[in-house]
Amino acid sequence: MKSFSRLFTFMKSHSSLTNVLTDHKLASLGDAYVNLVYSLAFSAKMGEPSGKKVKGTVLAEALRKAGLRQHMPSRMTSHKLADAAEALTVYAWLNDCITLEQSVTILLKSDDLINGLTQLLMKAKEAVRLS
Amino acid sequence: MKSFSRLFTFMKSHSSLTNVLTDHKLASLGDAYVNLVYSLAFSAKMGEPSGKKVKGTVLAEALRKAGLRQHMPSRMTSHKLADAAEALTVYAWLNDCITLEQSVTILLKSDDLINGLTQLLMKAKEAVRLS
Repeated sequence: MKSFSRLFTFMKSHSSLTNVLTDHKLASLGDAYVNLVYSLAFSAKMGEPSGKKVKGTVLAEALRKAGLRQHMPSRMTSHKLADAAEALTVYAWLNDCITLEQSVTILLKSDDLINGLTQLLMKAKEAVRLS
Repeated sequence: MKSFSRLFTFMKSHSSLTNVLTDHKLASLGDAYVNLVYSLAFSAKMGEPSGKKVKGTVLAEALRKAGLRQHMPSRMTSHKLADAAEALTVYAWLNDCITLEQSVTILLKSDDLINGLTQLLMKAKEAVRLS
């Protein structure tokens, strides 16, 4: 993915985890990324190709379980928490902190989607090295 | 992407282009792939992250322009043609015939989305070496 990042230099400017988590434009791109990651993991698990979408409530729950809720303002809707999960995941990928294959493999290792996404978010948080 | 393909060996069995183009399960996964590719190309072009979906009519038109319509049965709906475009694109990627970065770059080089997708499909067709 290294050569990829030159196309996305505008995303490198975030100085805090909160800035990443509350970037709704990043969340919009992250939605496409997370859906592909989940679709690939689900396809590999089932042994046949399949397209899946991750529900917002599932993303929001994973965000909480990953301990990321505390990095966001209070009074956030579930929808905003889901956006935050999508934003962080794609941010980590575009900044070469985690590969697409790693993302898929993390989901594959978990029997439960919420746990898999929690692991993915924890890995992303650790990898982006922001506080 | 090479290490990726070991997860998706079940997709390697297609023996003809027609089989790929009419595989609706592959199309379902391809939908997620194509949307990420387009979202990334659009984000890079605009200089800010954005999530986009490619319309079925656009995919169907690109499939026709790429000369792929003739490899499909007659009496196909626009929806089926769009599915075919998604199926071939993700098939080429999962078989290491084209990278995600190449896919994004092809769309970026075209001012017009239909032309970009046409180029992507022609490249995918050439790369999968099926007739």
